[in-house]
Amino acid sequence: MQLRIPGPTPLPEEVLQAMARQMVNHRGPEFAEMIRESTAILKEMFQTKGDVLILTGSGTGGMEAAVVNSLSPGDKVLSVANGVFGERFADIAETFGAEVSRLGFEWGQAVDPDAVRAALSQDTTIKAVLVTHNETSTGVTNDMASIGATIREFDKLLVVDAISGLGAIDLPIDAWGCDIVVTGSQKGWMAPPGLAMVSVGERGWEAHAQAKMPRFYWDLARAKKYLDDRGQTPWTPGLTTIYGLHAGLKLLQQEGFGNIIARHARVGAKAREGVKSLGLSLFADEKHASNTVTAVKVPDGVDVKKLRGVLRDEFDTVLAGGQQSLEGKIFRIGHLGFVTEADMDAVIGALKAALPKAGFKG
Amino acid sequence: MQLRIPGPTPLPEEVLQAMARQMVNHRGPEFAEMIRESTAILKEMFQTKGDVLILTGSGTGGMEAAVVNSLSPGDKVLSVANGVFGERFADIAETFGAEVSRLGFEWGQAVDPDAVRAALSQDTTIKAVLVTHNETSTGVTNDMASIGATIREFDKLLVVDAISGLGAIDLPIDAWGCDIVVTGSQKGWMAPPGLAMVSVGERGWEAHAQAKMPRFYWDLARAKKYLDDRGQTPWTPGLTTIYGLHAGLKLLQQEGFGNIIARHARVGAKAREGVKSLGLSLFADEKHASNTVTAVKVPDGVDVKKLRGVLRDEFDTVLAGGQQSLEGKIFRIGHLGFVTEADMDAVIGALKAALPKAGFKG
Repeated sequence: MQLRIPGPTPLPEEVLQAMARQMVNHRGPEFAEMIRESTAILKEMFQTKGDVLILTGSGTGGMEAAVVNSLSPGDKVLSVANGVFGERFADIAETFGAEVSRLGFEWGQAVDPDAVRAALSQDTTIKAVLVTHNETSTGVTNDMASIGATIREFDKLLVVDAISGLGAIDLPIDAWGCDIVVTGSQKGWMAPPGLAMVSVGERGWEAHAQAKMPRFYWDLARAKKYLDDRGQTPWTPGLTTIYGLHAGLKLLQQEGFGNIIARHARVGAKAREGVKSLGLSLFADEKHASNTVTAVKVPDGVDVKKLRGVLRDEFDTVLAGGQQSLEGKIFRIGHLGFVTEADMDAVIGALKAALPKAGFKG
Repeated sequence: MQLRIPGPTPLPEEVLQAMARQMVNHRGPEFAEMIRESTAILKEMFQTKGDVLILTGSGTGGMEAAVVNSLSPGDKVLSVANGVFGERFADIAETFGAEVSRLGFEWGQAVDPDAVRAALSQDTTIKAVLVTHNETSTGVTNDMASIGATIREFDKLLVVDAISGLGAIDLPIDAWGCDIVVTGSQKGWMAPPGLAMVSVGERGWEAHAQAKMPRFYWDLARAKKYLDDRGQTPWTPGLTTIYGLHAGLKLLQQEGFGNIIARHARVGAKAREGVKSLGLSLFADEKHASNTVTAVKVPDGVDVKKLRGVLRDEFDTVLAGGQQSLEGKIFRIGHLGFVTEADMDAVIGALKAALPKAGFKG
C-alpha cells in the first residue's frame, strides 16, 4: 500500500523486523546502549550540542512538554501560526495559563519575519515565541533562519514545533537560535508513532529553571537526569517503538544527513510537479512549499471524500484530507521518511487514474 | 531469556509478529476496527460499563491523566500509600496543585481500610482518594473491595492505580466502586510498554466536568469524543504498540478471564513457595501477597547486585531490584502477563544455582 499521509509513513523492512524483537529490561544494559546510540544520532540530525530527550507520547505530547518546561502561568507568549498545528501550540500554552498573543497568517502562506519583528517591537513584555517549522496542515515550511534571527534580536525564547520537518528538511537548530525543538517519531524518522523527541539548549534550560507550569510526566530535567546518569527514562518507555526508532535512525545515519535532505527536496519537487501536471493547483505558496507534505486544492466538481475512497479502494493509495476549516477544500500528500521519487510517480499515477472517477473534468 | 521483572514482560510470538505489521492510517477504517475491538475487550477485563480510553504514554502518564481529569487546584485529596507508586500518585496530585493528605502504611504491609475510614471521618473536606491496587514496589495487593466500600460510605471519588494488577488479579471496578482506574500495556496485558488505559465511570465524568487542573494531551473527554465519534484518538497513537496490545488482548480473550486470574494465582503461589523453599523470606505480608510480583528480602551476606548479575549473565534470568529505600534490601520477581508455572520453576531453579555464587550460605 502507498500510505502517503504526513505520518505515520511506511516503514522499511529492517524497522518492521526490529519491532518483532522480544522485550528487554528497560533498566538494563541493552536498553542503555540503544537509547544512548539513538540520542547521539538524533543530536547529529538536530545539529545541536544541547540535549535531545526521547519521550513516550505523540508529537502533541512533545509540544506540551516544550510549553510546560519553559513557561510559567501568566507569562506573555507570542504565538506565530499559519495553520492547525500553530494554533494547537497556542492552545496548549493557554491551557497551562500563559497569556498568549496570536499573530496569525493566512493558511497556505508562510510566516512573515517582519511581522514577527513588528509584534516583538510593539510588546516588550513577551517572554517566548512559539513557531511551527513545517505546517503539516497546509504544506508550508516557514523560514526559520530569518524567524530565528529576528527573535534573537529581541533576546526571546524560541520554542519550535518541528514535528514534521526535522530530519527531512535542513534545520540547524543551534545555528538558527531554536532553544527548544520538538519532533515526532512517525514523521521523518522511519519509525512508528509513539515517541516525541525534544531538544533543549542552554537557553532552554535557563527557561526551565524559572518555569513554574506544573509538570510531572513531561518533566525534561528528570528525563535528562535519567538519561545522563543511567541511560534510562524516568518512566517505562515505549520499548517496541524505541526498537523501531533505533533501527530507523541507523538507516538514516547510513544514508547520510545531506543525502536525506536532498532526497526530500527531490521528492517534494516531484510531488509538486506531478500535481501541477494533472491540472491541479497547489494550496501553499510555492516559494515556501514543504518538502515533506504537499497540500492540493480540491478542484471544482470533485468530491474529495470520493477521491480518497477511490484511491484507497481501487489504487491502494492512502492520502490525507484537510483539517478543520480546510476539510473538503484540500487533500494532502505526505512524502517524508521512507519515500523515494518512484513512490511519488506511483502516487501521481494513481491520482491521474482516480480523479475522473471522482468527478474531475480537468 | 527469562525476563521476570514486573513489566515489561516477555511477549508471545503472535504479539511480536503483530508488531512487524506495516503502518496504516490512524484515521482510517483498519485502525478504527482495531481500537474499537481492543476497547471492547478491555471493558470486559475492567468489568465496567463505563468508558475505557487508550492513551499513548506510560502508566505514569495514565496516573497524571487520572489526576488532572478529576481534580482542581486546591482540592483536598487523601493519598493512601504503601510503596513507591502510592507516593508517586500523591506527588502527581501535589504537582498539579491538590492539597494532599498522606496516609502511609509500612512498605510491605497492606492498606488498612479502617485507617482509611478514620481519615475520612476526621477530615470531611476531602474530595477524592488515591489508592494503589497492586503496589509493584513491595508485592502487596490491597483489599480494594473493602477500601472501595469504605470510600463509598463517605461518597468520595475513588481514583485507583491498578497498573500492575488489572487483568491479572480480579478487580471488578464497577462493583467495587472504583471511579477512575489506570493500567499499563506492559503489565498483565501481554503487550509492550507505551500505552496507558484509563477507565472513567459515571462519577468519574461528573468529577471531570468540575475539574480545573490544566489538561490538553491527557484530556479524557477529548479521547472519549474521538473514540465514540470516529474510532480514533485525538493525537497520533503509538500504532505498533496498539498492534501488540490488540494481539495480546485477543489471546487473553481466548484464554478467558477466569482462567487468567486463576493462572496468576497459581503462578504467584508457586513463586512464593519456591522462594521459601530456598530458605529466603518474603518481604510482603503474605496475607496480602500479590499474584503479579513477589518481593524477596535479600538474605544476610548476599550482594544483590552480584546476585542479579550472575542470574543475568550465567542463567539468562532477569529479575528486578528494589526501588528507593528498598534498593539493596529486596529483589523482585515479576510473574504477570505471559507467564506459566513452568517459568516460575525455571526462575526458582536459576535462583537456587545463583544464590551461592552471590554469597548465600543458607
